[in-house]
Amino acid sequence: MAIMDINADLGEGFGVWELGDDLALLDVVTSANVACGFHAGDPLIMRRVCAASVERGVTIGAQVSYRDLAGFGRREMDVAPAELTAEILYQIAALDGIARTEGGRVAYVKPHGALYNRVVRDAVQARAVADAVRAYDPSLPLLTLPGSAVHDVADGLTVVAECFADRAYTPSGALVSRREPGAVIHDPDAVVQRAVRMALDGTVVAVDGGEVALKARSMCVHGDTPGAVELARSVRSALSGAGVVLESFA
Amino acid sequence: MAIMDINADLGEGFGVWELGDDLALLDVVTSANVACGFHAGDPLIMRRVCAASVERGVTIGAQVSYRDLAGFGRREMDVAPAELTAEILYQIAALDGIARTEGGRVAYVKPHGALYNRVVRDAVQARAVADAVRAYDPSLPLLTLPGSAVHDVADGLTVVAECFADRAYTPSGALVSRREPGAVIHDPDAVVQRAVRMALDGTVVAVDGGEVALKARSMCVHGDTPGAVELARSVRSALSGAGVVLESFA
Amino acid sequence: MAIMDINADLGEGFGVWELGDDLALLDVVTSANVACGFHAGDPLIMRRVCAASVERGVTIGAQVSYRDLAGFGRREMDVAPAELTAEILYQIAALDGIARTEGGRVAYVKPHGALYNRVVRDAVQARAVADAVRAYDPSLPLLTLPGSAVHDVADGLTVVAECFADRAYTPSGALVSRREPGAVIHDPDAVVQRAVRMALDGTVVAVDGGEVALKARSMCVHGDTPGAVELARSVRSALSGAGVVLESFA
Amino acid sequence: MAIMDINADLGEGFGVWELGDDLALLDVVTSANVACGFHAGDPLIMRRVCAASVERGVTIGAQVSYRDLAGFGRREMDVAPAELTAEILYQIAALDGIARTEGGRVAYVKPHGALYNRVVRDAVQARAVADAVRAYDPSLPLLTLPGSAVHDVADGLTVVAECFADRAYTPSGALVSRREPGAVIHDPDAVVQRAVRMALDGTVVAVDGGEVALKARSMCVHGDTPGAVELARSVRSALSGAGVVLESFA
Repeated sequence: MAIMDINADLGEGFGVWELGDDLALLDVVTSANVACGFHAGDPLIMRRVCAASVERGVTIGAQVSYRDLAGFGRREMDVAPAELTAEILYQIAALDGIARTEGGRVAYVKPHGALYNRVVRDAVQARAVADAVRAYDPSLPLLTLPGSAVHDVADGLTVVAECFADRAYTPSGALVSRREPGAVIHDPDAVVQRAVRMALDGTVVAVDGGEVALKARSMCVHGDTPGAVELARSVRSALSGAGVVLESFA
Repeated sequence: MAIMDINADLGEGFGVWELGDDLALLDVVTSANVACGFHAGDPLIMRRVCAASVERGVTIGAQVSYRDLAGFGRREMDVAPAELTAEILYQIAALDGIARTEGGRVAYVKPHGALYNRVVRDAVQARAVADAVRAYDPSLPLLTLPGSAVHDVADGLTVVAECFADRAYTPSGALVSRREPGAVIHDPDAVVQRAVRMALDGTVVAVDGGEVALKARSMCVHGDTPGAVELARSVRSALSGAGVVLESFA
Repeated sequence: MAIMDINADLGEGFGVWELGDDLALLDVVTSANVACGFHAGDPLIMRRVCAASVERGVTIGAQVSYRDLAGFGRREMDVAPAELTAEILYQIAALDGIARTEGGRVAYVKPHGALYNRVVRDAVQARAVADAVRAYDPSLPLLTLPGSAVHDVADGLTVVAECFADRAYTPSGALVSRREPGAVIHDPDAVVQRAVRMALDGTVVAVDGGEVALKARSMCVHGDTPGAVELARSVRSALSGAGVVLESFA
Repeated sequence: MAIMDINADLGEGFGVWELGDDLALLDVVTSANVACGFHAGDPLIMRRVCAASVERGVTIGAQVSYRDLAGFGRREMDVAPAELTAEILYQIAALDGIARTEGGRVAYVKPHGALYNRVVRDAVQARAVADAVRAYDPSLPLLTLPGSAVHDVADGLTVVAECFADRAYTPSGALVSRREPGAVIHDPDAVVQRAVRMALDGTVVAVDGGEVALKARSMCVHGDTPGAVELARSVRSALSGAGVVLESFA
C-alpha cells in the first residue's frame, strides 16, 4: 500500500501583505510548512494558520529560514553555525508555542528557500540546523531532499525525503537546477502523472528518458502562482484515485 | 521573615551591539528579565543569557515588548489586541524553547518599556498581554506595578507587584513620573536605605515626607547606566545583611 | 476653470509581496505618493515606480511614514521630534535620489497612515515633519487635510489640502471617523458625483444634508481594494468630462 | 610630498545601542565612512555624525552595506544586481540628503563588511555597486582595495585604493585573510611604523619579509576595539610628524 504526505508552504504573508491562498491549500495538504517570521509570517498569521490547520487535521511543521524579510529568505547567507542554530531554535519554539495554544504542535521542521538549498550541500549549516532540532526535540523529523547533507549530519534525527512532481530530475535523481531550461514542468497532466508514479512506483522519468528510483515519503506542492492551487488539487485527487493513502509522516 | 526577589533586564544587546553587563548583573539578581528579540535580544544572546542564568540558579522571565528595535520598545504603539496577544505569545514561546535547551524555562513574564507603562493604565492592552500568558501557561506570573490595570484583567493569573528603590513615590504609592524633577533618586546611600525599608517594612517615604505602604515581592534594579551594577550590588548586600531572604517569586 | 490633482498611494509592496496595481493607478493619477521603505516599499520597487511615473508624466511625492513594516505604518507611535524629523528626512532623501536617477524628483511630501492622522491634531509631530521638509527643500509642498495642525506649523512651507470623494464629511468640513457608520461611501455613482462637485463647486454634502465648502487642490483615490482602480478611473473620467483640468499641484 | 587620507567607520550605533567613540575618531580622520542604516546607523545618528563631521571639516562618505542589521552587514548575501544597485542608491541618497541639511554632502562611497570583501572578487556585485554610484553621481569616488574587481567595472568612475597599517600583506600585495594567524598586527609601534612607510614610501613589508609596493591614497583606521582610538591617534600623529599631508581624497 502506497502512502504519501503532501506538504506546502503556508502562512507566508506579513502584516498587511498576503501571499497564496492558505485556506484553499489547507484542503489539499496533509502537512503545512508554516512560516515562522524570519522570511515571512507574523505572530498573528502564524496563530491563524495553526488554528486552521488543527481544525482540518493538517500536521504543522516549522518552515525555518534565514532572517531575511526583504529577500523572502531566498538569498544564501553566511550565518555562523552557533547563530544559525539559535535562530532555528527561536523559530521552532515560537511556532510550537503558538501551535499549542490552538491545540496543535510543531511536528516536523523544513528549512525554507536559500537555507533549504544550502543545507543540501553545506554540512556546516546542515549540522547547525540539525543541532537546533535535536536541542528542541530530537523526535522531530527534518524534511529535505534525498541525498541532502542533512542525512549525513542527522546523527539520530529522523530525516524525511520529499519529491516534487513539477520538477525535472537528473539521471542521478537530483533536481535539475532552476537555471536550466525545462527545470519546471508546466503541463498539468504531466505533473499529475509523475505524482502518481512517484507515489505508486517510487520512480520518476529523468531528463535523459531513463527511469530513476525516488524514495520519498512527502510530496511538495505550491500555492503561490496562478493555477497552483488547482494543480495541487488535481495532484491530490489523482493520488487518492490511484489508491495512495494520503497521510502525514509525522 | 522578609523575602524579596531582585529582578533586572538582561540580554538587551542585539547582534554586534552590547548593552549593560549581563554576567555582572546575574550575580546580583534572583530573576532575569530576558529580552525576547522584539525590542532587543537576538536568538544567540537569548541562548547565552539563559545558559548563564541556569548556571547561576537565576530564574528566567520573558521580557516581552512591542516590535520596535529602532526605539528599544520605548514608544507606545496602538497595536490591535489580537495582534499584541500573538506577538507576546511568540516572544514567550521563543524564549521558553531556548531556555529549555539550556535546562531552564520561562517562569514569569514582564512587559518592557512602553508596553510596561501602557498596561498599567490601558485595560485593553493589559488584557491582550494577560491573554497571551493565559494561553501559553496560566501558571506563569505577570510582573507589574501595584495598582496596574493588569491586576484587574488577570482573571486567575498570578500578578506579582514590584518596587523600585531608586524611584520617588507619590503619597498614593504610585511612581513619580520621570518627567518630574526628583523622579529618580541618585544618592546610593538613600537608594540602599529605601531598599531595606521596602523589604523589611513594606513601606517607602513618599515625596511629601509621609510613609506609604508598598507591598512588593520583587525589587527592580538596573544595569545599563554607569555605576548601576555597583549600586545593584550594594542593594543586594544590604538586603542580605538586613536578613532579607533573596529568592525568586516564581 | 477648475483644476484638480488626483493622488494615490503607490509602491506599497515589499520584497516578494505586492499591494495594489501600480501601473493601472499610474494611468489615473497626476501625483504618485510613493512609499519610501518605512511602512512599505523597498529600493527596487521605489526605483521601478519612479521610472514608471516619469514615463507617464506623473508627479512623484514622498509618502513618509513611521518605521513600522509589520503594522504598515498604521499604528500611532510616540516618536521623539528630533528622531521623527531625521526619519522623515531620510525617507525624502532616499526617494529623491532614486527618482533623480530615473529623470524625476520628489516634488511634494505626504505623511502616511497613522502619521497622516497624527499630524492633523498633534502640533509637535506636525512640526517635526515640517522641519524635515524645510531642512530638505523648503519649496516642497506638504499634502494634508484642510484644518490640519500642519497648517499652523508650516511657517513658510506650502501646504496643500486634499479631499476624498469616497468619505463622509461632518458639517464642519472634517472627515467622519472611520469608526462611525457611513464613514466610507461605497456607491460608485455617489462617489463620482461628489468628486465632480468637489472639483467644480468646492463643496460637499455633509452627513447632516447641508452643503460645506471644501477647498482642496488634490483628490485622493485608492487602489488597494477590489474595484478601487475601476472607481478611480470613473472619477478621473467624470472630472475630465466635466471640464476639470487634471494637473498636479507641484 | 606625501599625501594621505585617514578614514574610519562612524555612526555605527543603532537606536539605543552605541558602537565606538565617534567624536574621538572625528578628531583623527580626514574622511568619515558614515553608516547608512542598512548594517548600522539610524537617521538621527546619521544626522548627528554628519553635523559633527561638517563642524570638524571631515569629509563624509557613504558606508553602504547589505541590508542586515542582525549581522552588522558581515554575512555575504546573494543579492540580485538590480536590487543591490537600488539598495546602494537608497543608502547614498538618504545620507547625502541628511548631510546636506548639515552643510555637508556625500563625497565618496565605501562598501562595508561582507559587501566590501565581496566586491573585491565578485564582478557582478562590484558592477551593481558601481552602477549605483554612477547613477547617483558619477563624480563620487569609490573606496576599495587595490586589485579589487571594482577597478575592472568602474568604467569612468574614480576608484581610490586604501591600505591598512594593522594588517599583514601577502607578497603579492593582498591582505592576509583574517582566518590566518598573524593577519592583524597588534603591536602599536609596528603599526605606526608601517603606517609611515606606507605613506612615505608606498611600500609594506609582506609576510615573507619582502618589500611590496602599495599605492594607496587613504589609510583605514579602526575605532571599535579597546585601544583602537588611541592607536589611530598615534598613527595620525606619526604621519603628521613624518611630514605627510593629511587630506581627504574627495
